Amino acid sequence: MHAILDEGLICHLSFVIDGEPAVLPTLYARVAGRLYLHGSTGSRPLLAALSDDGLPVSVAVTIIDGLVLARSAFHHSVNYRSVIAHGRANLVREPVEREAALAAIVDRVAPGRWADCRPPSPQELAATAVLQLQLAEVSAKVRTGGVIDEPADLALPYWAGVIPISTVRERPVPDRDLAAGLPLPPYLAAQ
Amino acid sequence: MHAILDEGLICHLSFVIDGEPAVLPTLYARVAGRLYLHGSTGSRPLLAALSDDGLPVSVAVTIIDGLVLARSAFHHSVNYRSVIAHGRANLVREPVEREAALAAIVDRVAPGRWADCRPPSPQELAATAVLQLQLAEVSAKVRTGGVIDEPADLALPYWAGVIPISTVRERPVPDRDLAAGLPLPPYLAAQ
Repeated sequence: MHAILDEGLICHLSFVIDGEPAVLPTLYARVAGRLYLHGSTGSRPLLAALSDDGLPVSVAVTIIDGLVLARSAFHHSVNYRSVIAHGRANLVREPVEREAALAAIVDRVAPGRWADCRPPSPQELAATAVLQLQLAEVSAKVRTGGVIDEPADLALPYWAGVIPISTVRERPVPDRDLAAGLPLPPYLAAQ
Repeated sequence: MHAILDEGLICHLSFVIDGEPAVLPTLYARVAGRLYLHGSTGSRPLLAALSDDGLPVSVAVTIIDGLVLARSAFHHSVNYRSVIAHGRANLVREPVEREAALAAIVDRVAPGRWADCRPPSPQELAATAVLQLQLAEVSAKVRTGGVIDEPADLALPYWAGVIPISTVRERPVPDRDLAAGLPLPPYLAAQ
């Protein structure tokens, strides 16, 4: 489960407001047995729903690995790896823990980046909400492998197979104001 | 919003069970002003929670387009396109509508595929749950473009820019039992 959490780029965070379901995409990082969730734009309702003893949430991280095209419509499927965590998320109030969580979130999307950017000022740190969720109630689902068709369908004249899907990081595009001669750092070039 | 819904591969479906939030990844397709959601494995709690007048849900489709690396940690961001729809989802009971929905879902992931596979038998059709959600309460969020840094940070010696992210369909892998001489269909080769 940790491997899936450490590969996904975003999670979908679900919570309840006034009895109604809500869902938000957001950045996250795993640190040991905890998930840290970035309080992104759009999370104002989430933060408003947070009480002192936290907020029940359900968090999903899903990685799509392939489309499985069977001869029969019924056996079409998707290869995927998914983790769902349930629990009570709490606002991280301690600035030191919040900064460590933000470092983990930045390094999650670009390992090595935190050490190579300007750290947050106290004001910036105060303006960034981070939630913490203990990974206690966690389940994983994985579908892998090839097509599974009914034996009677194997001779049907339909192509069958798997279309692998991957998430690709393309060549970095430098900011137009980048100081001349500032090279792409090795931790970005290696991807 | 339709363009985003028509590009995403999966959605995350959020609902409430016994007052607690739940979230599931699943396949979907948009047909005119409706979203059809595939009742995948793992959706048994979802189906159990459905009453005759439906179930309040929140559905998110999120496409990640790039990682935005600013000179300051605080201004790190993600380029993304996201749609969130709220409403009451209902089970599609009518077999004709259910088959049309499944056709749309299969053609969503591989356009042209539904006409090139064995259609579901009545038993298979009966075994597949599909939910319908009217797209009435829908919002989109998009972040696009480059790095936004504080003017005072522009001269800092940190690389800044965008790493484009794309979801790539790789070369299809034929099923090992594929009948000899069965070519890759044009609608798959074209991707």
